[in-house]
Amino acid sequence: MNSFGKIFRLTSFGESHGVAIGGVIDGCPAGLKIDIKLIQADLDRRKPGQSHITTSRQESDCVEILSGIFNGVTTGTPIGFMIKNKDQHSGDYSNLKDLYRPSHADFTYDQKYGVRDYRGGGRSSARETIARVVAGSVAKQMLAGLGIKIQAFVSRVGEIELEKSYRDLDLDSTESNIVRCPDSETAGRMIQRIEEAGRNHDTVGGVITGVVSGVPAGWGEPVFNKLHADLGFAMLGINAVKGFEYGSGFEGTKLSGSQHNDIFIPTGEGIKTLTNHSGGVQGGISNGEDIYWKVAFKPIATLLKEQNTVDVHGNEAVVNVQGRHDPCVLPRAVPIVEAMAALVLADHCLLSRVSKL
Amino acid sequence: MNSFGKIFRLTSFGESHGVAIGGVIDGCPAGLKIDIKLIQADLDRRKPGQSHITTSRQESDCVEILSGIFNGVTTGTPIGFMIKNKDQHSGDYSNLKDLYRPSHADFTYDQKYGVRDYRGGGRSSARETIARVVAGSVAKQMLAGLGIKIQAFVSRVGEIELEKSYRDLDLDSTESNIVRCPDSETAGRMIQRIEEAGRNHDTVGGVITGVVSGVPAGWGEPVFNKLHADLGFAMLGINAVKGFEYGSGFEGTKLSGSQHNDIFIPTGEGIKTLTNHSGGVQGGISNGEDIYWKVAFKPIATLLKEQNTVDVHGNEAVVNVQGRHDPCVLPRAVPIVEAMAALVLADHCLLSRVSKL
Amino acid sequence: MNSFGKIFRLTSFGESHGVAIGGVIDGCPAGLKIDIKLIQADLDRRKPGQSHITTSRQESDCVEILSGIFNGVTTGTPIGFMIKNKDQHSGDYSNLKDLYRPSHADFTYDQKYGVRDYRGGGRSSARETIARVVAGSVAKQMLAGLGIKIQAFVSRVGEIELEKSYRDLDLDSTESNIVRCPDSETAGRMIQRIEEAGRNHDTVGGVITGVVSGVPAGWGEPVFNKLHADLGFAMLGINAVKGFEYGSGFEGTKLSGSQHNDIFIPTGEGIKTLTNHSGGVQGGISNGEDIYWKVAFKPIATLLKEQNTVDVHGNEAVVNVQGRHDPCVLPRAVPIVEAMAALVLADHCLLSRVSKL
Amino acid sequence: MNSFGKIFRLTSFGESHGVAIGGVIDGCPAGLKIDIKLIQADLDRRKPGQSHITTSRQESDCVEILSGIFNGVTTGTPIGFMIKNKDQHSGDYSNLKDLYRPSHADFTYDQKYGVRDYRGGGRSSARETIARVVAGSVAKQMLAGLGIKIQAFVSRVGEIELEKSYRDLDLDSTESNIVRCPDSETAGRMIQRIEEAGRNHDTVGGVITGVVSGVPAGWGEPVFNKLHADLGFAMLGINAVKGFEYGSGFEGTKLSGSQHNDIFIPTGEGIKTLTNHSGGVQGGISNGEDIYWKVAFKPIATLLKEQNTVDVHGNEAVVNVQGRHDPCVLPRAVPIVEAMAALVLADHCLLSRVSKL
Repeated sequence: MNSFGKIFRLTSFGESHGVAIGGVIDGCPAGLKIDIKLIQADLDRRKPGQSHITTSRQESDCVEILSGIFNGVTTGTPIGFMIKNKDQHSGDYSNLKDLYRPSHADFTYDQKYGVRDYRGGGRSSARETIARVVAGSVAKQMLAGLGIKIQAFVSRVGEIELEKSYRDLDLDSTESNIVRCPDSETAGRMIQRIEEAGRNHDTVGGVITGVVSGVPAGWGEPVFNKLHADLGFAMLGINAVKGFEYGSGFEGTKLSGSQHNDIFIPTGEGIKTLTNHSGGVQGGISNGEDIYWKVAFKPIATLLKEQNTVDVHGNEAVVNVQGRHDPCVLPRAVPIVEAMAALVLADHCLLSRVSKL
Repeated sequence: MNSFGKIFRLTSFGESHGVAIGGVIDGCPAGLKIDIKLIQADLDRRKPGQSHITTSRQESDCVEILSGIFNGVTTGTPIGFMIKNKDQHSGDYSNLKDLYRPSHADFTYDQKYGVRDYRGGGRSSARETIARVVAGSVAKQMLAGLGIKIQAFVSRVGEIELEKSYRDLDLDSTESNIVRCPDSETAGRMIQRIEEAGRNHDTVGGVITGVVSGVPAGWGEPVFNKLHADLGFAMLGINAVKGFEYGSGFEGTKLSGSQHNDIFIPTGEGIKTLTNHSGGVQGGISNGEDIYWKVAFKPIATLLKEQNTVDVHGNEAVVNVQGRHDPCVLPRAVPIVEAMAALVLADHCLLSRVSKL
Repeated sequence: MNSFGKIFRLTSFGESHGVAIGGVIDGCPAGLKIDIKLIQADLDRRKPGQSHITTSRQESDCVEILSGIFNGVTTGTPIGFMIKNKDQHSGDYSNLKDLYRPSHADFTYDQKYGVRDYRGGGRSSARETIARVVAGSVAKQMLAGLGIKIQAFVSRVGEIELEKSYRDLDLDSTESNIVRCPDSETAGRMIQRIEEAGRNHDTVGGVITGVVSGVPAGWGEPVFNKLHADLGFAMLGINAVKGFEYGSGFEGTKLSGSQHNDIFIPTGEGIKTLTNHSGGVQGGISNGEDIYWKVAFKPIATLLKEQNTVDVHGNEAVVNVQGRHDPCVLPRAVPIVEAMAALVLADHCLLSRVSKL
Repeated sequence: MNSFGKIFRLTSFGESHGVAIGGVIDGCPAGLKIDIKLIQADLDRRKPGQSHITTSRQESDCVEILSGIFNGVTTGTPIGFMIKNKDQHSGDYSNLKDLYRPSHADFTYDQKYGVRDYRGGGRSSARETIARVVAGSVAKQMLAGLGIKIQAFVSRVGEIELEKSYRDLDLDSTESNIVRCPDSETAGRMIQRIEEAGRNHDTVGGVITGVVSGVPAGWGEPVFNKLHADLGFAMLGINAVKGFEYGSGFEGTKLSGSQHNDIFIPTGEGIKTLTNHSGGVQGGISNGEDIYWKVAFKPIATLLKEQNTVDVHGNEAVVNVQGRHDPCVLPRAVPIVEAMAALVLADHCLLSRVSKL
């Protein structure tokens, strides 16, 4: 199922080595001024080849808007868009046609569909996230007009963890280094860890933290579409993600209730909370505090060394992937995390308009 | 939004102190033999008052089927059901009418809807999960016919953790103790920890682990409705949940790719994997291995002691909840985790029928 | 599929001779004052036994609200409701268990589901529309607050046609006669026609006209959910409906474009049209003029006389239905037509809030 | 809302004079062999300039498949496609920027969205139906493999009516004349009627009949998504449509029940009906007989002569459209009617797979 969202809704298409990746954004309100350069900037943060710790594939990933924007403003009609695939070495993959790469989607796609576009993982490739970044960038522009800011950063690579809270960091500095960690010392160690993985023809996982400020109280649709449930659903749908937690998360479950509860206090700007273990969401609805969460990314399954596996006939085989691949997905996944959060929030922004008479 | 699922779909209704909790199961295939006693058994596992470590409220929670089942068999038409609310002491809550309890949904519901049923938390009460347990029990009966078994258990209470893998446990023994931990020694320590919290008029959180065996390869709907994304969405929608991880989860992100990849091996029963860091899901589609995950539950926000807070007018206030409340939600949440997993799997079971020509 | 609507959404359940008919209204905005007596009044317009030209079955059809309304006001949470089935003579139907009644749903339900609740048609009975009337009555109350009035009336019974336009009728007089035709002379002839059908143990069909005034310009969701397309979908889902047209309808297709176009004119109250062949909808979006349409109802298939048919084994058989049945569904279908229109309009009212920034 | 269908689902985009018209087909089963030439052939039946009774605009309308098909076979992933807009004379429309054309969507789009792409009607242009024809053609190819044949034809132009039943016509001859009426004598008179309208700079409406053979018993999803309700919804969403009826339709409501009922008879090929007033659908579910229906198309609103109107400021104005326009939409709408029927049936085909255990 390739649609995301209830009102503000992305439907995406495209395989790694097909003609194009693209999508349709339906439900974007009319009257939104769109800056294509901001969309392209987010795509550039996602694109391969942007630094020596990412794959050296050069994908230009230029977005073409096909509909829905007239004289720079959304018209309320669907926004079709497309990014043509270029510089794709399909030949790299012909030797994988009959093999199931370990911990990839090759086997499961064949089991589900009985047929598979084996070139670069086809639809299961992370190139698919290009469409998410485009749609998320449109959503960001809508939310920015409401004073809402969405920022993600790499908070762990392998065992190298950024120990500080996001509150003690300058999130605007995230883009100042290639690993997208807003603490230069930790960033340096993360980069070394990724370089080490690359030298070993191996890969490394980690954690991305997301933070949203400026969301007013009242967004979220219990009982099933709680704001954090939709956010978690969005994150878990990103390639390689293995876990999601928000607010105090897994660690917070070790606290007692009297430690964990966020005490309400009256302030000049309305009701606030002393602490924010709730992560800005209570009962599935935003309470006006910062929303923050963590996303776990597994180490990428594509290794540039021999691995045992089976072929499509069920026989033992050896797979040896060539080509240009990332040793660590985290730096390029930062804009994807932001994009998916933006889609969730844009949707709930619109849904919040129909809660009351 | 109070509907869950795409084909096999629950729509639920009901407040804690309203007339009834109930729902409609739409899309359950015709021809399924339903044993009402099994539904009631799951409700009894969720009900309060079942042991000294749960609330002493006596809620009988008897399910009444209103439609959709004829001569014990589903007819393909919607299954309406209802559980009448009884033994509800609305008076307990009249003093909470003008207060926002810390880390509850009182404040956010008021912000969203401008009106609130303050009796026992209204719709935000965990009594709402009764409808999930009923629908999940129907889903379980459908899945059982396919050889699919869903089992959850308490794997951590506060800091008391069950260190063993689910593979080294007898999950059929989970129901043999009141905390629902399939290791009697750990269960004993967990019970002590809950008793301690109760004595302190405090609460404690923890973790539930879920395991599903018997799911064939090929279930899941990428790119957005990956099997684990729908599962995470389901879990995050349960009251008090703060996090979700599947397979190797957050810890697995510390491994290198060569450690984390699950090597395929040919076996007499088809293609299997040597390890299962993937948690039975690859590329968002089941691969035939066990599916397992963890869910983080925060300590319950309702404390039987004084807390500072604000009232609905924004003034400082003190809240002092009376009544009968759980010091720990974990034991009663086990059937809820199972129910939500069952709903996800029943839905994907049906969706898997339309993947191929 | 038993849910209707996108934001304002009814999910219904219940069979003719089951425990209850009911439903869940999800997405009704919070803060709406609900008058249960108005709901009951609409149910009473639908109920059997209300006059000598309808079936003499006495169904009290009392609505019970189970959730979602607190102190007389909607809370934004789902409104569960139920109407218990009483005075049902299941025995009347035991002889139909093995027969397929002509032009009923007996055969097709068996083909689709492989199992069937044969008592009174089960889910295919028009008793199912009770849930629509309840939800529609809630929607009407929301729309009334916006100055929107929904009125339907019987405009043809068999060949007896009300020739006047709705503009030349006093629609408030519709309830003044038992056939619900706002022209007393025509009503008299219609009643005679229905009495004649009853005497012949036969049935008769006809047409209901619906009119809505007060809808502002701007409601409707092209390209697929055009306002008239959703309205037509709603009408075609009512039992026994065979056709739908709006505005100039089928007859209007005989006009030339220069005759058919509705010329815009400036007025003190904004832009209006000289004529209204468009039926208040242009390009799928309301233009502020009256919305009007016609719905064709076939003669009821249940005849109180012998008919040839086949049994469930495929053998020739004779069916001879006993019991109390309407010779004409039209008078009782008037509130159903209104209810379905109300559901469509309430939904589009809410959707119209998210069209623009 | 620009998505159609529940499982087999088209999401479309594009304006008349934008970069491209296109869409995404999600939920098409894997393993379907696609013949692009058949898609192009359906587009050619819809395209302008195909005869002297249609507009002389030359739109090549070449479909480009962007994803979802690999080696000529669907992979189960979304099928993205696009048709570039060419030969669009935007200049033709600059004089319409400030005018509301009578009975067009100009006024209502402005009311709804507050902004409008005025070039050629933007999204409200019938060029949008290109995406429907592409998706419908894919659906047709899926259905053809099941022995299902979908055929539409022009059965009335203005007052010129084809009196014969579809059963007495050779529907394969529909394409033998430019008006797409399978009776050459009537076709001749229809063509004259359209020529006459064109000479008068006027337009003419009419009726299209659709027929589907080969649908097995058991498709349709009561109570709301009855097969004919989804079909009617599909038809009413096509530009210029004012009405829909199936089976005996409006005329059938004049019959008595004993005349109208379709008597079941046992045959060597299973249970059939003697007559087919039901139009192949009973209780919202197909019964195995032919499905047939009629669709009313109003005369096109674009006239090549002066008309009074108002401008966007609410002042009186005169509109005088230039350019190349059809005097009658019927011949080109035939493949659109077929396409929308195919989408409905493909969706219900897949839904029918989940009705029973």
